[in-house]
Amino acid sequence: MSTKRKSIAIDMDGVIADTAQQFLNWYEMKYGVRFSKQQLQGKSELEALPDGAARKFVFEPGFFRGVPVMEGAREAVMELMENFDLYIVSAAMEFPQSLSEKREWLQEHFPFISWRNIIFCGDKSVIATDYMIDDHVKNLDCCKGRPYLFTAGHNLSIDRHFRVNNWKEVVEAMRGEIM
Amino acid sequence: MSTKRKSIAIDMDGVIADTAQQFLNWYEMKYGVRFSKQQLQGKSELEALPDGAARKFVFEPGFFRGVPVMEGAREAVMELMENFDLYIVSAAMEFPQSLSEKREWLQEHFPFISWRNIIFCGDKSVIATDYMIDDHVKNLDCCKGRPYLFTAGHNLSIDRHFRVNNWKEVVEAMRGEIM
Repeated sequence: MSTKRKSIAIDMDGVIADTAQQFLNWYEMKYGVRFSKQQLQGKSELEALPDGAARKFVFEPGFFRGVPVMEGAREAVMELMENFDLYIVSAAMEFPQSLSEKREWLQEHFPFISWRNIIFCGDKSVIATDYMIDDHVKNLDCCKGRPYLFTAGHNLSIDRHFRVNNWKEVVEAMRGEIM
Repeated sequence: MSTKRKSIAIDMDGVIADTAQQFLNWYEMKYGVRFSKQQLQGKSELEALPDGAARKFVFEPGFFRGVPVMEGAREAVMELMENFDLYIVSAAMEFPQSLSEKREWLQEHFPFISWRNIIFCGDKSVIATDYMIDDHVKNLDCCKGRPYLFTAGHNLSIDRHFRVNNWKEVVEAMRGEIM
């Protein structure tokens, strides 16, 4: 038994928040065309949709507030909190209006996470947790702990980090890390 | 000469932002009584004013947006940026409405600081920079780098961290740390 719990940094967009689905929902709402996640695989999130639409959406009020919760995230986060210190770490600073929306979103969908454990930042290079779960390699490449790549359409070709395909796999992987 | 610049985490309230002065300004505006900083020395920021006023102010729209810049902070930060990677690290998460106000405040008063170098968090225990400049010992006690205690009325009795009384002293102290 350890005296100190290990810490995990968990990303929001693409990890606990199904932001890819929200891009598709908003594209259909604004342009009347429905894409599937499969159609956009292999492309970066912000370049996946025609007309630079995604890049516009992320600056619009309401976009981040309405993102669906990623399947299985809520239950998995609750389970992980039993054995780890969890920090939600989101690169929210690029989109100023997203700050309050993301804070409200967390309060609605993850009310059991204390404000003490929420971090909104620009880059994540100064975040020091024992583990980091993220869908972006730019965050994982410079992280100080052990990286876990959460599968997203834009990262399917990446093979330099341990991959977790869904929240069930995250919980299974982290079970082996409990001290 | 080093190949890697060292990093500094710089607090907002009480360090680059003269939040103590803003408490006094708002107290005078709302209660018609003017206190001086000297009258409140030795007390915690949130308990210093009668009627729990400070605790109310921090939840009111406009409070954080209007805080005066700490004397000398702007010029000192610009000078430090020549030799260090600077991160503004503010424990903003407890006061949700402060998030956008603090982001706007930085954009107005420190527009030369990139969004990549701004971090809003709850506690600061997972922030790993080489140095941390803060007025609260709770942040410095658990920080991973070298702590500098920025003098504030509420921390005058603390003697367990290297003290800097103003931004001139910060710049002088950090000159000795340039690699």
